[in-house]
Amino acid sequence: MDPDALSKNFVDHYYSTFDTNRGGLANLYQDSSMLTFEGQKTQGSLNIVTKLTSLPFQQCKHIISTVDCQPSGPAGGMLVFVSGNLQLAGEQHALKFSQMFHLLPTPQGSFYVQNDIFRLNYA
Amino acid sequence: MDPDALSKNFVDHYYSTFDTNRGGLANLYQDSSMLTFEGQKTQGSLNIVTKLTSLPFQQCKHIISTVDCQPSGPAGGMLVFVSGNLQLAGEQHALKFSQMFHLLPTPQGSFYVQNDIFRLNYA
Repeated sequence: MDPDALSKNFVDHYYSTFDTNRGGLANLYQDSSMLTFEGQKTQGSLNIVTKLTSLPFQQCKHIISTVDCQPSGPAGGMLVFVSGNLQLAGEQHALKFSQMFHLLPTPQGSFYVQNDIFRLNYA
Repeated sequence: MDPDALSKNFVDHYYSTFDTNRGGLANLYQDSSMLTFEGQKTQGSLNIVTKLTSLPFQQCKHIISTVDCQPSGPAGGMLVFVSGNLQLAGEQHALKFSQMFHLLPTPQGSFYVQNDIFRLNYA
């Protein structure tokens, strides 16, 4: 699969899972995975999903504006860079965000998220 | 050097060079390096610097808001994720941007930019 299609598939899957079943993100991460969410660092699939499911909002919807990708080098990974808007239930204005993922291949021929960095883009 | 200090040093060096001597960025990239600038893909140090020096503005100043970093995995690399504002000469309003760099180690014990993805965050 070409990198652009792979990235778009990943992004669609990631945010639709986030918006409908946040706990289901657990199997996208591994014990070595790292999340930096608004500057707060977390490591490991369980800790990351605990962090994501404890964010102070329940219903949300990510609306994606751009997806860029590049192969990350010798380890066969893929960098995915996303910008978009995050609409929270009951809030009038969406929040702009940027997020990057570093996907690394698994022995089974799939990918997992080794690195995840998220930032809101305040006006 | 710890990853946060390394990333901050890199970011300071990168943007001060961009804002004062854009052509001087050439030695931060190598032939394998990739730039995606507002969705446009370029590869190789010479092509990347040609792209950066031909952007349709001369004087600019990057004002950094946040810098996040994570080690990128088995290859000993470092991911650096930046958000900030780009002030162009003669423009009243700064442009918000997000940018990510993947730094990989050189045999000489330094780092070069293997991946560079830049996006303006339009309101």
